[in-house]
Amino acid sequence: MTDTLEAFRHYREKMNAAILAADNLTINTRTYEAGALPVKTKELLGLVASMVLRCDDCVTYHVVRCREEGVTDPEFYDAFAVALVVGGSIVIPHLRRAVARLEELPAR
Amino acid sequence: MTDTLEAFRHYREKMNAAILAADNLTINTRTYEAGALPVKTKELLGLVASMVLRCDDCVTYHVVRCREEGVTDPEFYDAFAVALVVGGSIVIPHLRRAVARLEELPAR
Amino acid sequence: MTDTLEAFRHYREKMNAAILAADNLTINTRTYEAGALPVKTKELLGLVASMVLRCDDCVTYHVVRCREEGVTDPEFYDAFAVALVVGGSIVIPHLRRAVARLEELPAR
Amino acid sequence: MTDTLEAFRHYREKMNAAILAADNLTINTRTYEAGALPVKTKELLGLVASMVLRCDDCVTYHVVRCREEGVTDPEFYDAFAVALVVGGSIVIPHLRRAVARLEELPAR
Amino acid sequence: MTDTLEAFRHYREKMNAAILAADNLTINTRTYEAGALPVKTKELLGLVASMVLRCDDCVTYHVVRCREEGVTDPEFYDAFAVALVVGGSIVIPHLRRAVARLEELPAR
Amino acid sequence: MTDTLEAFRHYREKMNAAILAADNLTINTRTYEAGALPVKTKELLGLVASMVLRCDDCVTYHVVRCREEGVTDPEFYDAFAVALVVGGSIVIPHLRRAVARLEELPAR
Repeated sequence: MTDTLEAFRHYREKMNAAILAADNLTINTRTYEAGALPVKTKELLGLVASMVLRCDDCVTYHVVRCREEGVTDPEFYDAFAVALVVGGSIVIPHLRRAVARLEELPAR
Repeated sequence: MTDTLEAFRHYREKMNAAILAADNLTINTRTYEAGALPVKTKELLGLVASMVLRCDDCVTYHVVRCREEGVTDPEFYDAFAVALVVGGSIVIPHLRRAVARLEELPAR
Repeated sequence: MTDTLEAFRHYREKMNAAILAADNLTINTRTYEAGALPVKTKELLGLVASMVLRCDDCVTYHVVRCREEGVTDPEFYDAFAVALVVGGSIVIPHLRRAVARLEELPAR
Repeated sequence: MTDTLEAFRHYREKMNAAILAADNLTINTRTYEAGALPVKTKELLGLVASMVLRCDDCVTYHVVRCREEGVTDPEFYDAFAVALVVGGSIVIPHLRRAVARLEELPAR
Repeated sequence: MTDTLEAFRHYREKMNAAILAADNLTINTRTYEAGALPVKTKELLGLVASMVLRCDDCVTYHVVRCREEGVTDPEFYDAFAVALVVGGSIVIPHLRRAVARLEELPAR
Repeated sequence: MTDTLEAFRHYREKMNAAILAADNLTINTRTYEAGALPVKTKELLGLVASMVLRCDDCVTYHVVRCREEGVTDPEFYDAFAVALVVGGSIVIPHLRRAVARLEELPAR
């Protein structure tokens, strides 16, 4: 995992630019727009999916987006609990890092 | 995947009884109760987590529970879309089986 | 795994039609078209990716496509060997089913 | 999962023969021989590894081998408990099938 | 992976405290207590499960616990061999880090 | 992920030496030799398998080997596209790191 949220953002933007410059890969971004389910719920779905698949950078991305959509701490922990039950104790190290990310963000 | 929803339910109950009789394993069931997030959202989280981890029986379980909580077809497809984007094309066979399960349930 | 290749094709087409009718999900199909790498190589990549991720239906799909692109039995086994080394002995049951699929197809 | 243990054994032997006839793949079988750890412990390790990776056929193989090495029901359930805690609730459907396999074997 | 064992322990304790303070998640710790199987065997099961699921922090935790339970180097390597055969060459980078952790611990 | 390619090579060699000194584990290296499929294709298969299984060190290894076998940038991106479609958006962070590795290597 990249060391700080700021470092993650920098690295992500730099490499995404390199990837997009190759003009070969497309990344679908409409999935998380409002639909039958609100954006907030979709971002929570993306967060839990990322946690059980144990992708730290994906978790970081969705923790940030969830916070932007107004997810509260108790709601985060409800989502974490589902990820933990479904994915087992191997999710715990990723949970630690998710909570560390959450603490880097402004509280609500 | 067990052939029909009815067969799945029968097999699941029979084997769960055998497992619980051994009196060794405990299965946490409070995670999906109402908390900061409503039950419906939690079940959707369980559904998407099960899809990206590609567990057909888990998907069946949460499809049934989501329907019981009032999840509509468009909401199901929004959740499926997140699972598909996060988990990739290997999710597609499980999506086919999830939709087949959905068609076995009474419409809303 | 669906029992025969014919049953797989039927189920796949029926459920794909149901999924596409919902008009919500898009499935990228241009990835496997000829580019810097020939179609045959891309299908082999799809096959090995499906084997190490242990998705039987995906393996079936790519076994068929690889055969259509002229992949020979020794080439198939070279690809299987990479999947086995990278993915470990848990790939073996999927290898058995891949070989069973191969035997259902007309030889070359 | 193949329907019965007998059907599994038949299919496994038939396909293994087809695979070995291709004379390309080698399968390491010395790993489970007695070493610093006894065979019984190694088979339990193979069982739990197969459960958390959710490979039903691998689980079947190691359930049979564990029983042959004298693993008792309470020992099986101790191993299942570790798999369940590490791998989460997605392991449960595979646990059900493991217990069903165990019931097919002669008791000890 | 956190850089040193000491750093790992510090980070783990700090984040666990933050997580437990939220009073929402429970972590089952009785699974690894002595039962039909001895603690040492259970820790070896946890180690191999963590290796095939490729969770470095989990591997670190169980390497330490196994050593505390008296697991010798040849026994560690027997367990590593099972993880490698079951999980394939993708386990190798995690094996390297497991061995590095082992070298940080006092020898027996 | 180890910080630089040079650091990765150093760590890999040091730990491999420690592992081989234990004289217990064997690593099959013949799989990637020329056979029915050329070495270049086999290395691309290893690369895509490593990407969908999200093993950064394995990806680094195969990126280097692919480059040595003459894989061009457009060919790399074709392989990346297959990995992305099969494995989903959780592959993206690993793609970023793969591209960063590619930029560390001499261009062709």
